[in-house]
Amino acid sequence: MSISRKVQEAMKASSWIRRMFTEGARLKAEHGAENVFDFSLGNPVVEPPAEVIEAMVAAAGTKAPGSHRYMPNAGYPHVRDAVGSYLAAQTGLPYAGDHIVMCVGAGGGLNVLFKAMLDPGDEIIVLTPFFVEYGFYIDNHGGTCVKVPTDAEFLPDLDAIRGAITERTKALVINSPNNPTGVTYSKAVLDGVGAMLREESARIGHTIVLVTDEPYRYIVYDVEVPWVQCSYDDTILVTSHSKDLALPGERIGFIAPSPLLEGVTDMVTALTFANRILGFVNAPATQQRAVAQLQGKSVDPEIYRAKREKMLPALRAMGYEIVEPTGAFYMFPKSLNDDDVAFVRELQEELILTVPGTGFGRPGHFRISYCVDDATIERSLAGFEKVAARYR
Amino acid sequence: MSISRKVQEAMKASSWIRRMFTEGARLKAEHGAENVFDFSLGNPVVEPPAEVIEAMVAAAGTKAPGSHRYMPNAGYPHVRDAVGSYLAAQTGLPYAGDHIVMCVGAGGGLNVLFKAMLDPGDEIIVLTPFFVEYGFYIDNHGGTCVKVPTDAEFLPDLDAIRGAITERTKALVINSPNNPTGVTYSKAVLDGVGAMLREESARIGHTIVLVTDEPYRYIVYDVEVPWVQCSYDDTILVTSHSKDLALPGERIGFIAPSPLLEGVTDMVTALTFANRILGFVNAPATQQRAVAQLQGKSVDPEIYRAKREKMLPALRAMGYEIVEPTGAFYMFPKSLNDDDVAFVRELQEELILTVPGTGFGRPGHFRISYCVDDATIERSLAGFEKVAARYR
Repeated sequence: MSISRKVQEAMKASSWIRRMFTEGARLKAEHGAENVFDFSLGNPVVEPPAEVIEAMVAAAGTKAPGSHRYMPNAGYPHVRDAVGSYLAAQTGLPYAGDHIVMCVGAGGGLNVLFKAMLDPGDEIIVLTPFFVEYGFYIDNHGGTCVKVPTDAEFLPDLDAIRGAITERTKALVINSPNNPTGVTYSKAVLDGVGAMLREESARIGHTIVLVTDEPYRYIVYDVEVPWVQCSYDDTILVTSHSKDLALPGERIGFIAPSPLLEGVTDMVTALTFANRILGFVNAPATQQRAVAQLQGKSVDPEIYRAKREKMLPALRAMGYEIVEPTGAFYMFPKSLNDDDVAFVRELQEELILTVPGTGFGRPGHFRISYCVDDATIERSLAGFEKVAARYR
Repeated sequence: MSISRKVQEAMKASSWIRRMFTEGARLKAEHGAENVFDFSLGNPVVEPPAEVIEAMVAAAGTKAPGSHRYMPNAGYPHVRDAVGSYLAAQTGLPYAGDHIVMCVGAGGGLNVLFKAMLDPGDEIIVLTPFFVEYGFYIDNHGGTCVKVPTDAEFLPDLDAIRGAITERTKALVINSPNNPTGVTYSKAVLDGVGAMLREESARIGHTIVLVTDEPYRYIVYDVEVPWVQCSYDDTILVTSHSKDLALPGERIGFIAPSPLLEGVTDMVTALTFANRILGFVNAPATQQRAVAQLQGKSVDPEIYRAKREKMLPALRAMGYEIVEPTGAFYMFPKSLNDDDVAFVRELQEELILTVPGTGFGRPGHFRISYCVDDATIERSLAGFEKVAARYR
């Protein structure tokens, strides 16, 4: 067997998300896809807006010589400039093109960042419940993933984070609007995180970087999404256009260390180098050119709000306890049974696919990804009610 | 400084290719780009054929719902089927779509493969001179890169390879047509490599995988490029469409373990998993759909042959010793001075940019990448002659 032992073990353990996916495929084959209510994946059902498709077509078809060749590993200068200008205008910080590294989605960007940052045994703090892939991304580059629970509202627990910081702490990762909870952090919350990190960085004698993973920034209702880098200088933004432009399969995003980050120029060089040697080489050329003119654009979040409205009050009326989700097309209800895996199986018997909180490092809950057809939501409610009735 | 020590060191060492790139940029700024003869990079000057652009535009603009969403991590089933059918027809082996993992170029593919294969301290043998990035790709995933020199004709030296095989040997990497030499391995050479690997696998008690990196398969003159998997069952093909379709910036390729590879099904699962957790997630959607219908297509290699013809006889007449390059738009002449770095500096004084063999693990030579405008070739010859004359 020529497969790495670690990969063999990880494949056995698998992720809950993928396990549900496989089980879902079986149920769909057995019952017909239209009769299975699949809330297990974060694959947006919304199509890219027309201007996004037009930009992709124009970028793919351009007659300008050299448009499909290698460009510098950090991306096209004009694309980096467009992103830098946008961030400068939004944040008031002195961003320019040379602070930006275009990357293969946020998943690619986080791998590039961890490759650039981590020495063996360095620690990265993540807040549970968390996007499970972070654990792999950190481990890929020799780091240790340190999990710290958020509070009952799924907000950062500053004392718990302080308690987890050691001399090996390299960074804290936050994700707001959040997968899997749908919660968004306010300016006051971010200022608190920033103040805490400044104190702790001074205490341990080196800078703790704040990594902000923001693919859901524009999928939000009723709340503002503050700019994290305005609360803490040593911030590195990693994001993608998978959700805002509905292009997850196209693999395009960027990494943007704050212009105020300590050693920002060297960090951009390190990120560019890591982008190259991990084999990304550069973000795909056509996608880069397409998104240059689409910064700040997004699918209409009202589409997702309407889906939430079809689901959230109905579930609450059935007895499900749910922290208010303000974005990111996820909600993370308490499981009615303490054993969230067993509870998710109960829902599965009603042909409803969700992911147990255990898979996100937070047992006793389950994730509903409501980026699905309206009909899926409407037709699923009877099943949610049938299961809830057993617990009333 | 939040940057990994290893990355800091690697950035200091830099690669010869990038160092030349930077020096070239300085010379171009000083003398004007048209007066600098840049043979330092493998960035094809040829544009993608019209049908490639048409396929890209059609794939980007399709109205089929879901065309820009996530698909399975290994790629679209119909794209994998197209690649599998093509390989089955070409090789006579029972390839199908489920042997194929679509990936972000060959650089991405090799990282995915090494992630899937390597336990810490496992050894991968590469043949010098070699594509320098292999060393990073292997190190990224905890492996050790073992360098074995090729013979005077840049062909595999079977005894030297046998001598380097240990119980930790996981794979041998070959690259034909070759970067940096332009040499192509014949069927007899590959059969010899296969026979040797079968014996050595039996001796050490586990299978040594033969990794064949083939981005230059269709850029070849006068010779055939045999299918490596027909000489050795435990072969994994990694390739991209960067050179054949002239799409290096678009980042599209595939990994194809032979259907006869030991444990091929598990290997495909491991590759798919590694593609996901390294953050590639999937090869870009538009590029996948575009290349499905372009398997076996290529830019016209005669364009590159004509460039070689403008250069090779002229350089030989000046006294440069050059092993016949039969493809891949590179040649790897002996440096006229034993110190190849000093010699490359001499050429640089004539505004000719090349890469010293030291950068490829083979001192005493230098690489010419002739995928450049004809005018660059023609106008550079006086400089090559001026330097050569000093050594006659």
